[in-house]
Amino acid sequence: MDLLDEPVPGVGTYEDFNTIDWVREKSKDRDRHREIATKSKESTLALMKSISDAFSGWLLMLLVGLMAGALAGGIDISAHWMTDLKEGVCLNGFWFNHEHCCWNSNETTFQERDKCPNWKSWAELIVGTNDGPFAYIMNYLMYVCWALLFSFLAVSLVRAFAPYACGSGIPEIKTILSGFIIRGYLGKWTLMIKTITLVLAVSSGLSLGKEGPLVHVACCCGNILCHLFTKYRRNEAKRRETLWRSFFAALVAAFTLRSINPFGNSRLVLFYVEFHSPWHLLELIPFILLGIFGGIWGAFFIRANIAWCRRRKTTRLGHYPVLEVLVVTAVTALLAFPNSYTRMSTSELISELFNDCGLLDSSQLCNYANVSVTKISSDALPDRPAGPDVYTAMWQLSLALVFKMLITVVTFGMKVPSGLFIPSMAVGAIAGRLLGVGMEQLAYYHHDWVIFRGWCSPGADCITPGLYAMVGAAACLGGVTRMTVSLVVIMFELTGGLEYIVPLMAATMTSKWVADALGREGIYEAHIRLNGYPFLESKEEFSHKTLAMDVMRPRRSDPPLSVITQDGMSVEEVESLIAETSYSGFPVVVSHESQRLVGFVQRRDLVISIENARKRQEGVVSASRIFFTEYTPPQPPNSPPPLKLRGIMDLSPFTVTDHTAMDIVVDIFRKLGLRQCLVTHNGRLLGIITKKDILKHMAQMANRDPDSILFN
Amino acid sequence: MDLLDEPVPGVGTYEDFNTIDWVREKSKDRDRHREIATKSKESTLALMKSISDAFSGWLLMLLVGLMAGALAGGIDISAHWMTDLKEGVCLNGFWFNHEHCCWNSNETTFQERDKCPNWKSWAELIVGTNDGPFAYIMNYLMYVCWALLFSFLAVSLVRAFAPYACGSGIPEIKTILSGFIIRGYLGKWTLMIKTITLVLAVSSGLSLGKEGPLVHVACCCGNILCHLFTKYRRNEAKRRETLWRSFFAALVAAFTLRSINPFGNSRLVLFYVEFHSPWHLLELIPFILLGIFGGIWGAFFIRANIAWCRRRKTTRLGHYPVLEVLVVTAVTALLAFPNSYTRMSTSELISELFNDCGLLDSSQLCNYANVSVTKISSDALPDRPAGPDVYTAMWQLSLALVFKMLITVVTFGMKVPSGLFIPSMAVGAIAGRLLGVGMEQLAYYHHDWVIFRGWCSPGADCITPGLYAMVGAAACLGGVTRMTVSLVVIMFELTGGLEYIVPLMAATMTSKWVADALGREGIYEAHIRLNGYPFLESKEEFSHKTLAMDVMRPRRSDPPLSVITQDGMSVEEVESLIAETSYSGFPVVVSHESQRLVGFVQRRDLVISIENARKRQEGVVSASRIFFTEYTPPQPPNSPPPLKLRGIMDLSPFTVTDHTAMDIVVDIFRKLGLRQCLVTHNGRLLGIITKKDILKHMAQMANRDPDSILFN
Repeated sequence: MDLLDEPVPGVGTYEDFNTIDWVREKSKDRDRHREIATKSKESTLALMKSISDAFSGWLLMLLVGLMAGALAGGIDISAHWMTDLKEGVCLNGFWFNHEHCCWNSNETTFQERDKCPNWKSWAELIVGTNDGPFAYIMNYLMYVCWALLFSFLAVSLVRAFAPYACGSGIPEIKTILSGFIIRGYLGKWTLMIKTITLVLAVSSGLSLGKEGPLVHVACCCGNILCHLFTKYRRNEAKRRETLWRSFFAALVAAFTLRSINPFGNSRLVLFYVEFHSPWHLLELIPFILLGIFGGIWGAFFIRANIAWCRRRKTTRLGHYPVLEVLVVTAVTALLAFPNSYTRMSTSELISELFNDCGLLDSSQLCNYANVSVTKISSDALPDRPAGPDVYTAMWQLSLALVFKMLITVVTFGMKVPSGLFIPSMAVGAIAGRLLGVGMEQLAYYHHDWVIFRGWCSPGADCITPGLYAMVGAAACLGGVTRMTVSLVVIMFELTGGLEYIVPLMAATMTSKWVADALGREGIYEAHIRLNGYPFLESKEEFSHKTLAMDVMRPRRSDPPLSVITQDGMSVEEVESLIAETSYSGFPVVVSHESQRLVGFVQRRDLVISIENARKRQEGVVSASRIFFTEYTPPQPPNSPPPLKLRGIMDLSPFTVTDHTAMDIVVDIFRKLGLRQCLVTHNGRLLGIITKKDILKHMAQMANRDPDSILFN
Repeated sequence: MDLLDEPVPGVGTYEDFNTIDWVREKSKDRDRHREIATKSKESTLALMKSISDAFSGWLLMLLVGLMAGALAGGIDISAHWMTDLKEGVCLNGFWFNHEHCCWNSNETTFQERDKCPNWKSWAELIVGTNDGPFAYIMNYLMYVCWALLFSFLAVSLVRAFAPYACGSGIPEIKTILSGFIIRGYLGKWTLMIKTITLVLAVSSGLSLGKEGPLVHVACCCGNILCHLFTKYRRNEAKRRETLWRSFFAALVAAFTLRSINPFGNSRLVLFYVEFHSPWHLLELIPFILLGIFGGIWGAFFIRANIAWCRRRKTTRLGHYPVLEVLVVTAVTALLAFPNSYTRMSTSELISELFNDCGLLDSSQLCNYANVSVTKISSDALPDRPAGPDVYTAMWQLSLALVFKMLITVVTFGMKVPSGLFIPSMAVGAIAGRLLGVGMEQLAYYHHDWVIFRGWCSPGADCITPGLYAMVGAAACLGGVTRMTVSLVVIMFELTGGLEYIVPLMAATMTSKWVADALGREGIYEAHIRLNGYPFLESKEEFSHKTLAMDVMRPRRSDPPLSVITQDGMSVEEVESLIAETSYSGFPVVVSHESQRLVGFVQRRDLVISIENARKRQEGVVSASRIFFTEYTPPQPPNSPPPLKLRGIMDLSPFTVTDHTAMDIVVDIFRKLGLRQCLVTHNGRLLGIITKKDILKHMAQMANRDPDSILFN
C-alpha cells in the first residue's frame, strides 16, 4: 500500500454540520492502538506511554466527574439562593438562602420557616411589616421585578455570547452522539454561558428544569477535557464514546455528592420517599388511569410545543426572542405569585406532593381531621377525613395544574436554557396527588363498597396519596420522553422507592402506549426533526418494501454519477469536477466504460491534497495527471510530474447491490454508523446512497416533507 | 423480480450444526409482517389475525413464564425431598422432607431439627437408635448408597435418552443464541430428561448447582412453545429473540413464585441478608483481598477444569462416563459426610455463611463468648471473642474449602446436568467467612491498633463476617464467569443487600482484573472453544493489521473459487460441482471471464430445488440449462426445458473489497450476524470469507490451534 509518508494536515477531518464515518474513525483508533502496542515492546519510555494511554480514559472520566459534579453543585446552590432572593434577603449575610439563614433556629420545616427572625421579606425590609395588602403588593412587585431581571440577563447573555446555550441541548447531543458535527456546540463558551444562564433561568421562576441542561454542561466538560488527551482529541468516534461516559460520570458524581452530603440536606435522593406502605392490586386501576393521563398530556404537549416552535421559526415571533422571554416571564411571575403551589420552586412542589402526611405534618395538604386511632405508629397512619384546608389545597393545585400545563408549552424552546424533566414531573405529580386524595376520601367515606371491602376497613392506611403523585410524575415524564425502563430506574434513583416497581411500570407502560398511539415521536425526536438534523433512530422500524435502487442517486432521469477514474484524469479536470458539483465525495473507478469500483475519496481530502500539492510539490500544475493506482506508469518525457493520491482514497468503501432491500440498508447504516454506501449491479457501479438520502426516503414514506432533512 | 410462485418446502432452512444468516431471517420476518399488515386492511378476519399475531409474543412469554416457573418449583421441591432422603425419612409420610415433617413442632431452626420426633434417621429406623459408632456407620453407609443410586440413575438416563441434557448448557445456549443450529438441543426429550436428572444430580450431593441447567430448561420451554406460533416456528432469528426473553421470563417467574411464597419459606430472596450494619472504608482492603482470591481461584478453576475436560475428550477416560460419575459421587459422599459443612446441601451452607450471628443463634459458627453488652438490640450486636466451637468450625470450613475447590474441578463437565453458580459461590463464601471471622477477632483483641482505632472500640459492632462471605461469593463467581455489573445485580437479587454496592463492586472488579490477567476467557467461553463452536465474541477486540485478502479463500496457491455462471451451466455440471465440493454456498457470476458478481445461492437450496425440479417439473433432465437471469433467452428447438432458479438466489450478498481491514470485517460479521461475505477487487469477485474462516484466523492470530473450530 502506498500511504502518504507525511499526512497532510486536515486530511481525514470533517466539515461543520456533517456526519462522521464511524467505521473509518474506529479503524483509525485501532491503527493508533496497534502502533502504540508495537512500540511499547521497544523501549521503556514507549511502554510508559502505552500504559498512560490505557489509563487516560479513566483519568479523563475522573476529571469529567469532578468538574461536572462541581458545576452541578455550584448551579444548585446559586439557583437556590437566587430563587429565595425573589422573596426576601437574609440579615446575617445576603449570601445565605432562606434555609441556611434559618439554620440556627430550630424551625426548619417548610411550614414554620416564616417565623425565622433573620429572614426578611422585601416588604419587611422596606416598609417594616409583612401584613396588609400594601406589603403583599410590595412583595408581589419585587418578585416580578427580580424574575424579569434574571430572565432578561439570561436571554441577553445567550444571545450575545453563545447562541448554542439555549434549550435543553438533549436533541442536539443525541444527534452529536450519533455522529454529527456541530462545531462549538460543546465548546468552552457554551459551557460558561450555559452554566450562568441556567442559574438565571431557573431562578427567574420560569416553568423549566435544570436536569436536561446539566447533561449538556456535563458533555461540554467531557468535550473540553478531551483536548488534554491526544487519543480523544484526534478521533471523533472516541470522543463521542467519552461523551456518553461523561453523562454517566456526571450522574455518578451528582449521586456521590448527595451521599457525601456536604450541604447537610441529610438525604440520599432528590425526592425522598419515606413511606413504605403496601399497595393493593385494585389500585392498579387508578395507576393505569394516571398512565393514560400521562400519555395524553405527553402527546398534547409535544404537538402544541412543536407547533409553537415551528411558529417561532417561521413567523415574525422569532425576531424578538428577548421580548418573548420577558413577556413569558412576566406572565409566569404574575400568575404564579398568588398561588402558593406555583410560587414555591417546582422541585419543592414535587417534594411536597410526593410526601405522605405524618401525624405532626401541619401543611395545608395534610390538614386532616384527627380521628381517634387505636394504634399510633409513624409509618402506618390510618386514612382520615380531609379538613377544609385540604379542599382549598385541591383547588389551588387544580389551578396550578392548568397553569403549568399551558405555560410549559410556550416556555420550552425559548432562547434560555430549559429542561423538561421537572415541569413534566410537576404536572404528573399534581394530577396524581389530586387523584390520590380523591381515592383516599372515597375509600374513607365508602369503605363498605365492594371494591374497598377487605382492605380499606376504618382505621386502615389503605391509600397513600404521595404514591399517586409519584406514579403520576413517572407517567407524565414517560409520555413526554417515551422512556419506560430507564425512566423507572430514574424514578428509583430520585425517590429510593424500590417497592413500587409494579405501579411505576404499569403507569409508564400505559403512558407510552397511549402517547405512541397519539403520535409516534418523543419530544427530543420531534425537536431533532424540527431542526432537520440527520438522526437515524434505532427503534423506528423501516417496514416498506423498497429496494436500494429506488433510493440511490442518480435517479433514472438524472445525469450519471460523477466519478473519478483511477489513472486518467488531470488536476484541472478534477478541480472542475469539484467546482461543478457539491457532493461530499467521489467514487474512484477503473474506467468510465467498465465502472468497476476501486475506492472512494472525500471531497474535503481531495481539495486539501490538491491545494497542498500545488503549493509544496514541485512542478504539480493543472495538466498533471492524478493517479490512484498502486504503481504509477512511466510518464512521457516533458510531461508534468504526476500526483499520487492513493493514500487519501478509502480502499474499502461499503457496497450493496441494487436489489438489496432498503430495510437491510437501513440496518447496515444504523449498526455500522455509515456516512455513505455505494450501489452496484453485477459488479458495475450504479449509484450512491447517503445517510441524508435514507432520511429523506424515510420521511417520504411516512408522508412527511423530505426537504425537512437539512444536513448531510 | 422473479420469485418462485410456490416456495419449495425446505428452501431457506438450515442444516444441523450450521450458522444462520441473521440478515436473511430478519428480512423474511419483515416480509411476513408487511404482508399481514397489508392484508389486515382487506377483511375483518385478516385484521383479527394481525392483532393476534402482534399479541402472540406476549402470550408466548406468559406461557413460557408459567411453564418454566412450574418446572423450577417442581425441581426445587423434589431436590429438597431427595436430599433429605439420604439422611432419613418422615414417619408422617415418606413424601415430606425434613423441614415439612417437623412443621408442627416448633423447633424448626437448623440446630434443633434433630429433636423433631417424626423424622427418623436411617439408623433410628433400622437399629432403633441414633447414638454410637454403629448407628453412625449405618447412616454413613445409607448416605453413600443413596448418593450412588441417584447419580447412577442420572447418568444412565442422560446416556440412554438425551445426551444433550448433560452439563450446564450455558455455553451451547450462548452459541445457539448467536445463531448456530444444534437440532434437538432444546427439544422435548432434552427438557424431560434434563428436568429429571437435574433433581437426581443435585440430590446425589455432587458439587454442582441447578441454576445453569434451569436456564437450559427455560430455553427448552421457550423453544417448544415456539412451535405453537407460526411467527416463531418458521423464523430462526425470531425464535432466538424468544429464547432470550424466555431466560428473563423464567427469572421473573422464579422471583414471582418466591414472592407469592406457596411453600411458606417466608423470604423473598434466596439467601436473605438480615444485617444492615455499615461497613468501614478500611474494610475495602480485605474486600479487595477477597477479590484477588476470587480472581486467582477463577483462573485456576478454568485452567484445571478445561485440562481435565480435554483429557476426558482425548483419552480413554471419556469411554467410561458412568463409572466416572459413580467414582466421583463415591469420593464426594465419603469425604462429605463426616464434615457437617459439606454434608448439608450447598445452598444451606451458603445461607448459613451469609448469616450474621444473632444473640440467640446457637449454631457452631455463632458460639461466641457472651460479654456484657450495654445496649442489646438485635441488629447491632457488638463484636465478641470467639468460643471453642467457632475454632472447630473454622477448621471444618478450611477442610471444606479445599475439598470443594478440588472436587468441583472434576465434577463440572461430567455427563450429568451440572451448574457452577452455587459451587463457586460456596468456595467464595467459605473463604470470605474465614477472613471475616479472622478480621473480627483481630479487631476484638487489638482494637487499639491504628487501623482499628476510632471504629472498632470495645462494644462496637464493627466487623460483619456474613458480609465478608457475601463479598467472597461474588468475587469467586466473578472470577469464574467474568461478569461484573450483571453479577452485582444478581447478588442483589439473591440477597437483597442493596447497601453493599461498593464492597461488591470493588471485589468483583478486582476479581475480574486478576482473572483476566491470568487467562483471558471465562468458563463458558473456554467450554465453547473446547467444543469448537462458531461463537464470535462481541467483547474480544480484534487488533491485528490483516486484510480481507489474507483471510479469504481460495488462498493464493489454491484452485480458483467455485462459482456458478448465471446462464451457462447445465443441471449436470451444477450437480457435479455440488458433488465435488463441500462448500455450503456458491457465488453466481455473469461469466467466468468477467467474474462480475450477481448473487449467492445456498448449497442446500440448490440441492433441494434441483431434486424437486427433476421429480415434478416436466422434462428437466441433466442436459437442461440452469438460468439465474431475470429473463430466460429463447431456447433452440428440441433442447430440454430450462430450469429457472433466480428465486432461490440471494440478490444482495454482502461484499467487501480485498483491502478491507479485518477488524472492520469482524465488526460487520458481529453486528449484522453474517454467515459469509464475498470479497471483490476492482469489481471482480476474488473469494469468500465465512464465519469459520474468521474464527480460524482469530485462533491463528492468538497462537491457538485453528483446527479447533469445527463447525460452519
